[in-house]
Amino acid sequence: MTAALSTEQVWQTILAETVEAADNEPTLASFLHLTVLRHSSLNRVLAFHLSSKLASPVMDARTLYEMFHQALVSDQNIHDAAIADIVAYYERDPACDAYSLPLLYFKGYHAIQAHRINHYLWLQGRKTLAYFLQNRASEVFGVDIHPAAVFGKGLMIDHGTGIVIGETAVLGDNISLLHGVTLGGSGKESGDRHPKISDGVMIGANASVLGNIRINQCAKIGAGSVVVEDVPAFTTVVGVPAREAGKTGSIPAQEMDQRL
Amino acid sequence: MTAALSTEQVWQTILAETVEAADNEPTLASFLHLTVLRHSSLNRVLAFHLSSKLASPVMDARTLYEMFHQALVSDQNIHDAAIADIVAYYERDPACDAYSLPLLYFKGYHAIQAHRINHYLWLQGRKTLAYFLQNRASEVFGVDIHPAAVFGKGLMIDHGTGIVIGETAVLGDNISLLHGVTLGGSGKESGDRHPKISDGVMIGANASVLGNIRINQCAKIGAGSVVVEDVPAFTTVVGVPAREAGKTGSIPAQEMDQRL
Amino acid sequence: MTAALSTEQVWQTILAETVEAADNEPTLASFLHLTVLRHSSLNRVLAFHLSSKLASPVMDARTLYEMFHQALVSDQNIHDAAIADIVAYYERDPACDAYSLPLLYFKGYHAIQAHRINHYLWLQGRKTLAYFLQNRASEVFGVDIHPAAVFGKGLMIDHGTGIVIGETAVLGDNISLLHGVTLGGSGKESGDRHPKISDGVMIGANASVLGNIRINQCAKIGAGSVVVEDVPAFTTVVGVPAREAGKTGSIPAQEMDQRL
Amino acid sequence: MTAALSTEQVWQTILAETVEAADNEPTLASFLHLTVLRHSSLNRVLAFHLSSKLASPVMDARTLYEMFHQALVSDQNIHDAAIADIVAYYERDPACDAYSLPLLYFKGYHAIQAHRINHYLWLQGRKTLAYFLQNRASEVFGVDIHPAAVFGKGLMIDHGTGIVIGETAVLGDNISLLHGVTLGGSGKESGDRHPKISDGVMIGANASVLGNIRINQCAKIGAGSVVVEDVPAFTTVVGVPAREAGKTGSIPAQEMDQRL
Amino acid sequence: MTAALSTEQVWQTILAETVEAADNEPTLASFLHLTVLRHSSLNRVLAFHLSSKLASPVMDARTLYEMFHQALVSDQNIHDAAIADIVAYYERDPACDAYSLPLLYFKGYHAIQAHRINHYLWLQGRKTLAYFLQNRASEVFGVDIHPAAVFGKGLMIDHGTGIVIGETAVLGDNISLLHGVTLGGSGKESGDRHPKISDGVMIGANASVLGNIRINQCAKIGAGSVVVEDVPAFTTVVGVPAREAGKTGSIPAQEMDQRL
Amino acid sequence: MTAALSTEQVWQTILAETVEAADNEPTLASFLHLTVLRHSSLNRVLAFHLSSKLASPVMDARTLYEMFHQALVSDQNIHDAAIADIVAYYERDPACDAYSLPLLYFKGYHAIQAHRINHYLWLQGRKTLAYFLQNRASEVFGVDIHPAAVFGKGLMIDHGTGIVIGETAVLGDNISLLHGVTLGGSGKESGDRHPKISDGVMIGANASVLGNIRINQCAKIGAGSVVVEDVPAFTTVVGVPAREAGKTGSIPAQEMDQRL
Repeated sequence: MTAALSTEQVWQTILAETVEAADNEPTLASFLHLTVLRHSSLNRVLAFHLSSKLASPVMDARTLYEMFHQALVSDQNIHDAAIADIVAYYERDPACDAYSLPLLYFKGYHAIQAHRINHYLWLQGRKTLAYFLQNRASEVFGVDIHPAAVFGKGLMIDHGTGIVIGETAVLGDNISLLHGVTLGGSGKESGDRHPKISDGVMIGANASVLGNIRINQCAKIGAGSVVVEDVPAFTTVVGVPAREAGKTGSIPAQEMDQRL
Repeated sequence: MTAALSTEQVWQTILAETVEAADNEPTLASFLHLTVLRHSSLNRVLAFHLSSKLASPVMDARTLYEMFHQALVSDQNIHDAAIADIVAYYERDPACDAYSLPLLYFKGYHAIQAHRINHYLWLQGRKTLAYFLQNRASEVFGVDIHPAAVFGKGLMIDHGTGIVIGETAVLGDNISLLHGVTLGGSGKESGDRHPKISDGVMIGANASVLGNIRINQCAKIGAGSVVVEDVPAFTTVVGVPAREAGKTGSIPAQEMDQRL
Repeated sequence: MTAALSTEQVWQTILAETVEAADNEPTLASFLHLTVLRHSSLNRVLAFHLSSKLASPVMDARTLYEMFHQALVSDQNIHDAAIADIVAYYERDPACDAYSLPLLYFKGYHAIQAHRINHYLWLQGRKTLAYFLQNRASEVFGVDIHPAAVFGKGLMIDHGTGIVIGETAVLGDNISLLHGVTLGGSGKESGDRHPKISDGVMIGANASVLGNIRINQCAKIGAGSVVVEDVPAFTTVVGVPAREAGKTGSIPAQEMDQRL
Repeated sequence: MTAALSTEQVWQTILAETVEAADNEPTLASFLHLTVLRHSSLNRVLAFHLSSKLASPVMDARTLYEMFHQALVSDQNIHDAAIADIVAYYERDPACDAYSLPLLYFKGYHAIQAHRINHYLWLQGRKTLAYFLQNRASEVFGVDIHPAAVFGKGLMIDHGTGIVIGETAVLGDNISLLHGVTLGGSGKESGDRHPKISDGVMIGANASVLGNIRINQCAKIGAGSVVVEDVPAFTTVVGVPAREAGKTGSIPAQEMDQRL
Repeated sequence: MTAALSTEQVWQTILAETVEAADNEPTLASFLHLTVLRHSSLNRVLAFHLSSKLASPVMDARTLYEMFHQALVSDQNIHDAAIADIVAYYERDPACDAYSLPLLYFKGYHAIQAHRINHYLWLQGRKTLAYFLQNRASEVFGVDIHPAAVFGKGLMIDHGTGIVIGETAVLGDNISLLHGVTLGGSGKESGDRHPKISDGVMIGANASVLGNIRINQCAKIGAGSVVVEDVPAFTTVVGVPAREAGKTGSIPAQEMDQRL
Repeated sequence: MTAALSTEQVWQTILAETVEAADNEPTLASFLHLTVLRHSSLNRVLAFHLSSKLASPVMDARTLYEMFHQALVSDQNIHDAAIADIVAYYERDPACDAYSLPLLYFKGYHAIQAHRINHYLWLQGRKTLAYFLQNRASEVFGVDIHPAAVFGKGLMIDHGTGIVIGETAVLGDNISLLHGVTLGGSGKESGDRHPKISDGVMIGANASVLGNIRINQCAKIGAGSVVVEDVPAFTTVVGVPAREAGKTGSIPAQEMDQRL
């Protein structure tokens, strides 16, 4: 791992990668130009690309583009997190050898950024719109995130399909989730009922974390595991139901070691 | 939980909620008017909304709308079950605080009702059409239900992504399935080979129930579990493969307690 | 199981089944004519049907149709594998009582063939295009297959939703995967890091196979299991993490016995 | 000219012609089935076909279909005129050798029937909708008819492109208009300011009839002529401005003699 | 005619009219909200509405919207002319009793404003784009205007279908053109070869003005006439070829008297 | 006018012009690549571009593309005429300073080539398809040409809107028609009833030529004229009805002199 690039360096690298891609693949040259190259900021790229993905006869791409861009310029944190997420994919996913790949082609990345914007709309009180977009993202990405869920930055959701994250879930920074992960509630009563995930945690494919429990810092949850109790920091849990299986010596979200 | 509303009260409440939503969100006002408010019956709303979701260049929305509406008025049970399902979501899902939410925005609910209609078409002998629609629903909702599967009423499928239900599966009334649940067959021979799920059962996220087995009344299957044998009534099973882990004192489908 | 049909017999049977379907369902008659009946080869059918599925405003159906057809006529292996896959579904899936069903309506089948073509494009050096199509297939089918993954023939992926197959995965011949299966990597370093699946293996629903391990000939992995170590030939493993649970006396991919 | 068919005979003939067309042209078989053959009435065919033509992202085909069908069943005169118009094309246009041709493929016919429905909506007080549909028809058909214009029955508008008919125009029965005809107003004051066209009149291609004047019974206006004064019955006028050029011995709208 | 409204008053009146229309016609409420009511300026409304009209699979609505808005804010004259044109329709067309009607529903108005923007792009040197948009406008509006043509303000093109305006045509202020008018060239040599139309001129339906001639101030050209020589100021010409037929005592473009 | 290019030179020039356009306008680069640059022949370009224009939900672009390409390779005359037409526009229309312009952006050119293909389908006996495509071209181009009409080569139809050409019309070589021209029939009897236009003829904007008459070699018909009798060779006619107005000393279709 080389030294992390600055935000501006990431942006410039994305532009350079995209210029090269457009040269090599003329069938996608206008797509790359319209989606990336002509824009003056990552905010415009995100707004444009996500509005392409989520447009429908009910809500056209221009309307989404404007809404999304407004959200992005209103809350600088979304932009910063979107950059941190790109870096997270680049550093943690060996199949991701370019900064432009998650931005353009990774469904999990798209789902995260769509949620960040939808969370902004939810906080603005636009509940009907937020439910509509949650549903649309669930149809397009196969990722179902309640608009009230709180996300930190440096998040990687690999592949994405099957992810479910509930209303009162809270995710810290530098977390890695594989596809199929559930951060679900328990019971039929409203109130705080979803997991809290601390910094550095990795959760393996198809694992379920259920109820208002805390997965503490740098814990690791094995693929396919089901967790219904708090997990201590730097601890690996595995199984259905999950049992402690060892200690994590570093930051699991960055190591991406899937061994149990 | 308050006393259950009558069918007519549910319908009137949906209308009132939708009027309020349309007032608050003008970008969706015509969508809400065209989908809900102008219609004289829930059957028309369902037919319209599902035909919006499943339309494609091969089968346009008007044709689906007519087919779906004809199915709904021909079989009153579909309408009654669709109402009972709405009530099930409202009562069991804490994130569902309005009757209109599952109808308009919950992918699992849409998949259930699309299946109910598709099952009607299957029984009418329109196999080609039913396979076509099963495929279309699988693409749009990520929910794959064989058109021959038999569903009771009061069914909640939360989130929906990844659900697979096989040809000879039979579901009773008042059941809750979380996303990722498989009610699958075993073996390569045709015939009765899928699970039978009794009333009141809850099956947790990503659990697999495989073969012609019976999950008896008010049993509970933990998230991520794999069940290949009958489960007695009022019994909780957990694990891969699933083992008995306790007794359920009430109706798991209504309690929605995900603890193992 | 009757004696296997020749490639030409499979093709002729598909045509005959489709003629009958078009007669019975006039709403789909032109779809069946345009997709199947007017074409002189399975290659054209595949190219047409997959281009219908994957077309988008960015990449129109004609362009995909031409690309796909060119790939198919350039690499005869894709055609042969596509026929072998149809036969695999017909022989192993009791709900598949016609050769035309997987071709026309099975999402898992569509995802396999889209990958075979995408792998060809990847080998031609069209990386940008391959990433674009991987993403598009992930959105439409809920199946995420890295374009570099190597597939044998006679593959059945049932239902498909949630499948993830990584960059350095290699699959032999006559394999059956249920939906939700992950053939994933481990760690953040590039290089050979995904599973190798030998001939005759069956992997149950939602099972995860992680890391550069080998699942040897005719092994069986139970639904929901998580495998992080090699599995010997003719061996059944089950659990999270998976443990040996017995021996398979025949070819699990063909028997499709889901019992653990 | 053979004896006129009854309304029912016209309808049955259309069905028979369409069955034959669907057999001969499988690429259009489902179009013909969905547009014509499955419907129980000409009203449904008209509503379906016109809604196909006029649908847009702003107003989807289902909504138009319902509106149009409701208008058609509410005002029996529209249906009767639509039949009479088909007969008019069949009897007067030598290129029209089947009753189904104007219904399915003649832009002028589509524009007339869209106007009849739009006039109904205008009379119901739905001005915004009527303006919207007038604009949409003008874009699709190149025919611009104010929704307040009054049409008789047995009208043929050949080809259609460039037709303009103003707000206070009134057309009697059995009239033939060639393409490019203007029935326009004069001056900037509102009020009755457009032509009144009596029964049996024929107006040639690109002729303009301007102002609140009367074209009396069985008059004929030559192609390219400009008429700003009343024209007596059974009189031919020609030129810019138009002068009397002779007498018509029969019904010009039926004879379709374009000689000046 | 009442005293002219200020630009701001026109804008406010359009907003008020649109609020009322949205209340009366819920099927179009979101269209009116998204197209007009949510925007802070006429520039945004024009950019949005014209991009809806001209979008195609080749050039999506967002891209057009941005281009059009940029043109509008870069050249204040387009905005001012667009307002003056609205007022022209309102004052001269008796069927136009609201300022919002031409903006929303008049094809001729849309064609004018699309040309104004396209002319800006042409002047910026974007010839390929300008040809593309000229063609698109010709398909959608039936109005073919070379992007180099120069337009003044206060222009009304009624109905629009069939209008053709050539490369070196120049139009002054306060002109009225009816549909079907040609301002065409003559000969096969390039250079200045199209008409120059002075202030206050009215040209009737389907009239052709051909060659590098001048139609002087407040002249009137009768419907269907063909003009190949200069026309003096305040003069009416009529016929094929056109001959002087009288004098105009006022401003023909405002009087809209179509009598010859 | 420079010496005419060979067919191959025209094709190479089109490619070179398109490469330059794609470089200058990245928003259209993929459009130009997909429509022109990747193709190995003008036949493919025509088939691709016309199928883009005429595609609809009823008949998708791939199906049209294949049909059109098959027609083009089956009848070499269509290709040769399509080249000759391009040259005709280039030589006669001063606004056409590149060979690629009519091919890509001129509606009249598109309408001619769509008719040539449709005429081929008509001769193959596919009447239903030909009527369908005639209607579709009339909607998209505003040009209504009966599929039986016979066209020579070197035809220019400028602008196109409003053109109507009837069933038994026959056009020779090297003809120029301005927009709005009608080659119409007279009477209600079938049989040979439309004009025959000889080589070298030019017909001005909005002129109508009606009945089974002959416009002889190198005649010229003035704009807005109405012709109902034969016109001798090298003769100019003008007026409503048209009268002889002089002699043409050369080839009017090439001179494009619109003076009367």
